[in-house]
Amino acid sequence: MPQSKGYAATDSKTPLAPFSFSRREPGPTELVIDILFCGVCHSDLHMSRNEWGQAVYPMVPGHEIVGRVTAAGKDVKKFKAGDIAAVGVIVDSCRHCAPCNRGEEHFCAEGATLTYANKDRVDGSITMGGYSSNYVVDERFAHTVPSNLDLAAVAPLLCAGITTFSPLRHWNVGPGKKVGIIGLGGLGHMGLKFAHSFGAQTIQLTTSLKKKDDATKLGADDVILSTDDAQMKKHAGSFDFILDTASAPHAIEPYLNLLKQDGTMTLVGLPDKPPSVSIFSLISKRASVAGSMIGGMPETQEMLDYCGKNNITADVEVIPIQQINDAFERMLKQDVKYRFVIDMSSLK
Amino acid sequence: MPQSKGYAATDSKTPLAPFSFSRREPGPTELVIDILFCGVCHSDLHMSRNEWGQAVYPMVPGHEIVGRVTAAGKDVKKFKAGDIAAVGVIVDSCRHCAPCNRGEEHFCAEGATLTYANKDRVDGSITMGGYSSNYVVDERFAHTVPSNLDLAAVAPLLCAGITTFSPLRHWNVGPGKKVGIIGLGGLGHMGLKFAHSFGAQTIQLTTSLKKKDDATKLGADDVILSTDDAQMKKHAGSFDFILDTASAPHAIEPYLNLLKQDGTMTLVGLPDKPPSVSIFSLISKRASVAGSMIGGMPETQEMLDYCGKNNITADVEVIPIQQINDAFERMLKQDVKYRFVIDMSSLK
Repeated sequence: MPQSKGYAATDSKTPLAPFSFSRREPGPTELVIDILFCGVCHSDLHMSRNEWGQAVYPMVPGHEIVGRVTAAGKDVKKFKAGDIAAVGVIVDSCRHCAPCNRGEEHFCAEGATLTYANKDRVDGSITMGGYSSNYVVDERFAHTVPSNLDLAAVAPLLCAGITTFSPLRHWNVGPGKKVGIIGLGGLGHMGLKFAHSFGAQTIQLTTSLKKKDDATKLGADDVILSTDDAQMKKHAGSFDFILDTASAPHAIEPYLNLLKQDGTMTLVGLPDKPPSVSIFSLISKRASVAGSMIGGMPETQEMLDYCGKNNITADVEVIPIQQINDAFERMLKQDVKYRFVIDMSSLK
Repeated sequence: MPQSKGYAATDSKTPLAPFSFSRREPGPTELVIDILFCGVCHSDLHMSRNEWGQAVYPMVPGHEIVGRVTAAGKDVKKFKAGDIAAVGVIVDSCRHCAPCNRGEEHFCAEGATLTYANKDRVDGSITMGGYSSNYVVDERFAHTVPSNLDLAAVAPLLCAGITTFSPLRHWNVGPGKKVGIIGLGGLGHMGLKFAHSFGAQTIQLTTSLKKKDDATKLGADDVILSTDDAQMKKHAGSFDFILDTASAPHAIEPYLNLLKQDGTMTLVGLPDKPPSVSIFSLISKRASVAGSMIGGMPETQEMLDYCGKNNITADVEVIPIQQINDAFERMLKQDVKYRFVIDMSSLK
């Protein structure tokens, strides 16, 4: 059995600390991946501190994984030893329901298996995430990585990337559309890059004008200060689509006023408190509030390939794993541009 | 100037009482309509009691109007004196914005003119509604009525009818779709009739099993008691579309759980309190919460024509106008199947 070492949370209060464990033997369609980089997602912090009530300890977080294949089962087709492979938020699913059959494994009728703190479908163990030296996964849930991209900066694409790419595609963001991005963190900065790359008029919606220059560099055509009533009024009724990536509790009604007739605001952040929705705002223009999460395996590969062709990666700050607890604290203060990525060689 | 008499609210607390006023002279494209029947919409009660803060007194409510044309301006094309005409929630709009040009006058960029308690675009007076003997309106905002339908039972189609018809059409409710209707009042009973007529599997969602037989008669294939966790669990994730017609404040999360992947729940009722939306429910299946209100003039005519072809009208209780204040009280107790309609001959 592949031996792994990593960093784990042992309860909701204690900092992450070194932890050793073994992974199950890879099957014939499975890979062993030596992890090179793992992104630090806000949900890693929520989960390790049990803020969503779904924690299982010990917990090795991490679901933005890029690594090198060290072993490939005899029936593996997409990879061979030495290849780069990437793994995101889900690592298995029932593989036979309607959503799985159409490549929407994230909507698996029986529930997809998450990369960590979830029950492994193969051996019933608890999945351990990417803050570790290796991973064992079926090739269906691993992706190839375009060779021109910086691997550390690819890691966040596996969650922050697909989480923003998928809804922007689903709601047909492109030329002629005016699109707002709320939040400028790990998700928000990828939303800006994709919306801009898709050819939409891309507007950063922010509560802090300090972010104006950064948003512009990342692809924003304009920046609106959402606390400025005059600016918000000027843009009322003009947005086709708004992607809300903010994870702190916030009012969504002011943004609903920005939507056009038949416009949609899609939430991908996960505030602890459910937002309240102004019915008048929705009714008066047949607007929608929707939610979206990651994407299926084919769309995740499509996103990575798109990033390769268009030279898109995340803006990252690479850290050794020994700094993970500091990184969590800095993330809480939004003191990161825009994603921490752990260099897993620091484990050795 | 046409003289009119009707019933008006003079403040938010006093019952409606007889009231006389004059209407403006009809222009060349306008009609004078002798009102035969006017439906009693829940918003008439909200408005006359100023529960939405938009009241202007004296207020003559009523926006579900059916009557006979007594005079038609020289340029009127659709009507001649003696014809039956129907008027709904809006009686004018800018007529030159993009939504108006595509026949979506209810989304008029400058704001449509409401049938009552709104500023008349022609003479700046306050519009007076259909709880009265006549109405003056441009033919663009008046509809022809299929001759096979009972006129009293047609009146509620002008608000309750189009408010449910339009979203069911917009979200493609039809064969192969499973559709839920929340609420069994004026709107809900029309939603049932239309969804059933469109060929969808139509389910009444109710908090009271007393309504089971009635819902079935109106077109429900099944009735789910929304307070019964077992029933709600059994149907979780199975609905393509849910039309929420309830106007009392209520939780919408239990209904979101009923939606399929990419399902939509559309709100057409107007609770005083905005509902809170569970983000997890939306995100886990890319579901949407939307709003919808009435419809444009072409779609309202399409709805009336559809009702003519398919023999659909509202279930009504016809009352003399002298009972309007009692009717308001009974409406608050949901003691009406399913819409009060005022027989305006009682005014004489």
